[in-house]
Amino acid sequence: LVFGKPRTAIYAHMDNIGFTVRYNNGLVKIGGPRTENGFHLTGKDSQGEIDCFLVVDEENNLLYEAKREIERGTELSFKPNFREEEEYIQSCYLDNRLGVYSALKVCETLENGAIAFSCWEEHGKGSVSVIGKFLYENYKVRQALISDISWITEGVLHGKGPVVSIRDSGIPRRSYVNRIIEIAKASKVPFQLEVEGSGGSDGIELQHSPFPIDWCFVGAAEDHVHTPDEKVHKKDIDSMIDLYMVLMEKL
Amino acid sequence: LVFGKPRTAIYAHMDNIGFTVRYNNGLVKIGGPRTENGFHLTGKDSQGEIDCFLVVDEENNLLYEAKREIERGTELSFKPNFREEEEYIQSCYLDNRLGVYSALKVCETLENGAIAFSCWEEHGKGSVSVIGKFLYENYKVRQALISDISWITEGVLHGKGPVVSIRDSGIPRRSYVNRIIEIAKASKVPFQLEVEGSGGSDGIELQHSPFPIDWCFVGAAEDHVHTPDEKVHKKDIDSMIDLYMVLMEKL
Amino acid sequence: LVFGKPRTAIYAHMDNIGFTVRYNNGLVKIGGPRTENGFHLTGKDSQGEIDCFLVVDEENNLLYEAKREIERGTELSFKPNFREEEEYIQSCYLDNRLGVYSALKVCETLENGAIAFSCWEEHGKGSVSVIGKFLYENYKVRQALISDISWITEGVLHGKGPVVSIRDSGIPRRSYVNRIIEIAKASKVPFQLEVEGSGGSDGIELQHSPFPIDWCFVGAAEDHVHTPDEKVHKKDIDSMIDLYMVLMEKL
Repeated sequence: LVFGKPRTAIYAHMDNIGFTVRYNNGLVKIGGPRTENGFHLTGKDSQGEIDCFLVVDEENNLLYEAKREIERGTELSFKPNFREEEEYIQSCYLDNRLGVYSALKVCETLENGAIAFSCWEEHGKGSVSVIGKFLYENYKVRQALISDISWITEGVLHGKGPVVSIRDSGIPRRSYVNRIIEIAKASKVPFQLEVEGSGGSDGIELQHSPFPIDWCFVGAAEDHVHTPDEKVHKKDIDSMIDLYMVLMEKL
Repeated sequence: LVFGKPRTAIYAHMDNIGFTVRYNNGLVKIGGPRTENGFHLTGKDSQGEIDCFLVVDEENNLLYEAKREIERGTELSFKPNFREEEEYIQSCYLDNRLGVYSALKVCETLENGAIAFSCWEEHGKGSVSVIGKFLYENYKVRQALISDISWITEGVLHGKGPVVSIRDSGIPRRSYVNRIIEIAKASKVPFQLEVEGSGGSDGIELQHSPFPIDWCFVGAAEDHVHTPDEKVHKKDIDSMIDLYMVLMEKL
Repeated sequence: LVFGKPRTAIYAHMDNIGFTVRYNNGLVKIGGPRTENGFHLTGKDSQGEIDCFLVVDEENNLLYEAKREIERGTELSFKPNFREEEEYIQSCYLDNRLGVYSALKVCETLENGAIAFSCWEEHGKGSVSVIGKFLYENYKVRQALISDISWITEGVLHGKGPVVSIRDSGIPRRSYVNRIIEIAKASKVPFQLEVEGSGGSDGIELQHSPFPIDWCFVGAAEDHVHTPDEKVHKKDIDSMIDLYMVLMEKL
């Protein structure tokens, strides 16, 4: 989606983690879901809707327990259980439904900018370099913001605003991150600085692409990462959208 | 090799696993060969042909035992020992001599399509993104089939036809794989569906390239992977060639 | 930097290893620095210059010990302590200050060739594919030499000249490496052949790029890799520069 004369693109990944059905009731992971006995799973094959449960046996093999056999290659994901409290929402796949939601909210008023919805962020990457090439060659877009959900840690807390990430396993160009921090400070929207040694995002695929595209991760943080119980503070979602609106205008 | 107006390219890697001679009789792996004491190795340096044996010492160091010192940097591979039985053939490097053989057999009657022979599939990748770029930019080829040899597992058996792989460590786009499965079903050529969590192929390099190229692994399965004794059922080779002929026409 | 009609580009990375300040006095690595209690570190944040020490606690957490708190996201590196003896020099970051120095010395007399200074070699890669694309598309540069510092091993010794690397974790095209070896032999400049199974360089990023660019690592070897005490023989530096001058002319 391209609006006006874009200088910056928002990347929000649409894919989620889950499982693929293998042989003899076995499962293999898609991305890095947490695996606990009894997690409720859902999917669909040619025989119809599926409702089943995750089993982790003593040797750490992943199996499903269902009323019928599921076809080889069927994809299963956590069964949604959306919960809303006064301050928090909780559900599977807030990573990255919220990144997509935030990007769509920004669209409502966006004058100049591009929004990209990517796939394979959770497993293997592959679509961001294609989109980055397209936006770079056709619109000279050289700036990217990664609209995704991060983690609560000892330094990143609920309710303190979205994180602007100085680094995770990837390290973006510091002068670009500093510009974002300055705009964020001037905007008065609350935000927190994140410094991690692990984790990664679509930004790493942009970094590896043969195009000179700056990137920075900006997004709310969640608890219970990659489980059916991902939890995000409502204020952080609002601030995330506010911050994106400012950044898309000023950057 | 380009025939007619190609829509689909077959990628078959030509490289094989092996070893590089280091210092003091030491070896380092090229790709992931299985290492057993006494494996027979062959190679060539400026002093001529080499015939030697693999030694795995107590600390799991890899060494060679030969009549003379071998020059630093010399490449060694398993000594071929081709065996044919009524139903099976057995040799080193069926992975990927058979993928190349199948691609060449398809050439004999191919009207529209491209055949690419790649390198570094077993170690480090690097040639497929160059070929993919060339075929995409010059011929708009956006579909790929990976002509390679897979593994016998609890769900993939000898004599049941080549595998159409739904995933390994890489996950191809499902709608493309589903089209292949439908064509394969309609063709009556036997095949099996594969779902793995590990392993990989030239397809992953296409996925990571900044070009929108679909890929799917289609190939016979073998026992004793990456040893001098790789074993494939003859019927699976014939069906692999038959299936490729159909796919290159219908896809 | 492009001189005349370039056929070959020298890549020398400018970045170095270090640490990023996290939360609660914690640090995360940039690249792969060796971590020993008491290593002297230096950096700068908005409050001014920083002088501090590395602490590795019992659970192998990395912390800093300083007179004041350091701002989140600040980058720290080893405090330089340059030492010169009759035969050796010793300092942090000879990897890759010497690769840059050698490239600049070659510039003084270079008639045809390109020099590229890269970033993120030590962490995550990302700039070489952009530069390689630029030089390939604008100047048809298809040959690269990686001007970087390697390791002293059982087969690579001080004072025997720079290494021409046949392989590390990446394997360059052998016919290109062989041409380099022949030119080096004819030049009478001392050099040594290296064969490693691990380690990597900017060459791997060129290999993965969708451009057909040959690469080979050529550079002096050091002791005490990735510590404040990297040590290189002066003769090897001189021979490295001499060899590059010959290679840039003949290759």
